Amino acid sequence: MAPHDRPVIGFLTDFGLDGAAAICKGVMLSIAPDAQIVDISHSVGKYAIRDGAYLLWTALPWLPVGVHVAVVDPGVGTARRPIAVRTGRGDALVGPDNGLLMPAASRLGGIVEARLIENSAWTLRRSSATFHGRDIFAPVAGHLAAGGAFDDVGPAIDPTELVGLELPPAKVVNDQLGSEVVYVDSFGNLRLAGGAADLRAALVALEHADELLLELGRGGEARRATARWARTFGDVRQGELLLYEDSSGNLALAESGGNAAVRLGATTGTWVGIRRA
Amino acid sequence: MAPHDRPVIGFLTDFGLDGAAAICKGVMLSIAPDAQIVDISHSVGKYAIRDGAYLLWTALPWLPVGVHVAVVDPGVGTARRPIAVRTGRGDALVGPDNGLLMPAASRLGGIVEARLIENSAWTLRRSSATFHGRDIFAPVAGHLAAGGAFDDVGPAIDPTELVGLELPPAKVVNDQLGSEVVYVDSFGNLRLAGGAADLRAALVALEHADELLLELGRGGEARRATARWARTFGDVRQGELLLYEDSSGNLALAESGGNAAVRLGATTGTWVGIRRA
Amino acid sequence: MAPHDRPVIGFLTDFGLDGAAAICKGVMLSIAPDAQIVDISHSVGKYAIRDGAYLLWTALPWLPVGVHVAVVDPGVGTARRPIAVRTGRGDALVGPDNGLLMPAASRLGGIVEARLIENSAWTLRRSSATFHGRDIFAPVAGHLAAGGAFDDVGPAIDPTELVGLELPPAKVVNDQLGSEVVYVDSFGNLRLAGGAADLRAALVALEHADELLLELGRGGEARRATARWARTFGDVRQGELLLYEDSSGNLALAESGGNAAVRLGATTGTWVGIRRA
Repeated sequence: MAPHDRPVIGFLTDFGLDGAAAICKGVMLSIAPDAQIVDISHSVGKYAIRDGAYLLWTALPWLPVGVHVAVVDPGVGTARRPIAVRTGRGDALVGPDNGLLMPAASRLGGIVEARLIENSAWTLRRSSATFHGRDIFAPVAGHLAAGGAFDDVGPAIDPTELVGLELPPAKVVNDQLGSEVVYVDSFGNLRLAGGAADLRAALVALEHADELLLELGRGGEARRATARWARTFGDVRQGELLLYEDSSGNLALAESGGNAAVRLGATTGTWVGIRRA
Repeated sequence: MAPHDRPVIGFLTDFGLDGAAAICKGVMLSIAPDAQIVDISHSVGKYAIRDGAYLLWTALPWLPVGVHVAVVDPGVGTARRPIAVRTGRGDALVGPDNGLLMPAASRLGGIVEARLIENSAWTLRRSSATFHGRDIFAPVAGHLAAGGAFDDVGPAIDPTELVGLELPPAKVVNDQLGSEVVYVDSFGNLRLAGGAADLRAALVALEHADELLLELGRGGEARRATARWARTFGDVRQGELLLYEDSSGNLALAESGGNAAVRLGATTGTWVGIRRA
Repeated sequence: MAPHDRPVIGFLTDFGLDGAAAICKGVMLSIAPDAQIVDISHSVGKYAIRDGAYLLWTALPWLPVGVHVAVVDPGVGTARRPIAVRTGRGDALVGPDNGLLMPAASRLGGIVEARLIENSAWTLRRSSATFHGRDIFAPVAGHLAAGGAFDDVGPAIDPTELVGLELPPAKVVNDQLGSEVVYVDSFGNLRLAGGAADLRAALVALEHADELLLELGRGGEARRATARWARTFGDVRQGELLLYEDSSGNLALAESGGNAAVRLGATTGTWVGIRRA
């Protein structure tokens, strides 16, 4: 990292709102006083690595190139490795080697270099076994933001040996597109895999306002609903379901003016099948 | 806007805490790296334009003159217009033309100039239909904060043709003052319309510690309670209700050490009648 | 306070997420435009002075030396005094004289000077009776962060006459260590008093993986559970309880991958007795 006037540090955790994230920020600012820290979220579901990975994947492309640190870390203090990776875009991503950083890294140009965090001059002297956010990840992010060389993180490791995590893909079978619910956002919108092109491949000659048949869940427990293919919420009536291409270019299912997750009883991992009504 | 060393951007949305606000901040900081972004709230009730308008009205007078961007936008992607307005105080307010900005603008010296956002050099090239916070409002706020001319937002429009929104007024009838609950704050205090002067006009010779009779709701469903007219929470006993002039100069109803909204079953829009006990 | 390039202001309240904290930040930034404000928490339980005191005690040691302002203030507008204290480490802490600042001050080197806030040039002209965060504490913090002299806060007062607050201690009786739950963190981990040394004094020859017997609550209502003494969450199986030394050096009780507070029905103040199984 070249030093910037105001280096940006993106910051995501499952720490909640009661002080742990602020402690990490205090550590970062002690090392990099001019950092511009952007809280991506600290309300990631506890231990929900995939939710955290999804949120980084949606958010980081829109943050300036910088140092980004993420901590959703059920394995804190065990053998799982603390890592930093350099992306094709020029970011440094810092966090646990549990897959959390992988989808975002891939979207930022891929991993061009990975290092094991081992520089004891960059981490806190007496590290706890339960708060590596404070003791390891925050100070490393601070040093990188302050202009420290990526080489100084620790020894290079093989990027292909990092713990992988892939967001679930869409599946097209015959005239149907299926996807797990990848993420439920704060509006209750169900974020799915695949984009408009995938849907058009499954459902030929698709036009806005076309009616679709949804099947939620699998087998005997599946529930049915109908939705319209639409550009945006206001294109259907209040209370109607719509399927749309979301702001990340993926399919998503919403209730106009309402909460689709509550209405459909869907959560992360629920299977959604989509075909013509 | 003249460029400042650290231009302030106030930011309010109903996006919740899972990353959408951070995406907008990333866009703003990419354009205006020195901006000092102040999160007013991202926990506004979903689609609750009036709640958002109330919070902007309470908060913006206390923020430095700056660029302030607000997004509570059920009509995103439809024909509702994206706008920026200049206030008498010198702020630029950016958001949807759905009334959200109006009470605050009025309190900041009124609208001296309004413009339709149309400058495609200031908005993101490929705008989504569902996330104008990221694609339109954030980048326009960033450009204004970075010193861009207000004229460059887009064509001037007639301020009187903007969608209006007025916070509900207090009503004085005979010896009673009535108001809708305008907002329920995080303590459960019921923020009402009208100030101490209005109450004194209705209830002559009002003194602190006087007992008041409250009627909540209308007609056959109305519930009764008593409260004291007081300066502050500690002026009455724990668990007693008090009516006071809040920090915005409006009437408010609280339970000392408790939650008046829960106790009284009141929400935004509940009618509250106040007279002498 | 010597002026810094980017003076840090730590900020903790029970104001919630709907705008009151932002109003205070607006006031601070109007006075100290270059301040780097770190939100410690605004989700402290309403009126929960001890929770706020605990969070300041855990967080402030990790923030840079700065001005830190805290408002959990059920006595706002009454006779309780607004104060600022200077710590041995060099911080200025600003808030109500209700004990909130005391544990943190003690941990930052103790109080070397205390002053009553009385400088009317530093507080807002028309102070409300219900929002001293905005009218008194935020502007005083802003002036201190902008380089104002601590002497200018107001008259010196005797630190020994400040309202005290001590976090509960651990008690060792025979072969048992007991503690109230001092704080329940956002993971549901029960933060206790005392450290590993205290536990080892009560339970001689304690080794990691040893099984412990817990008694929650007192007398006839006490519930029993077993836990292992461990370094970190991943050292026991998912769903097992563990007792560990937390990142502040205190004992804490967690469920690996779960929420101990929910599982054990424990809240702040619940008594926990710990002995060998």
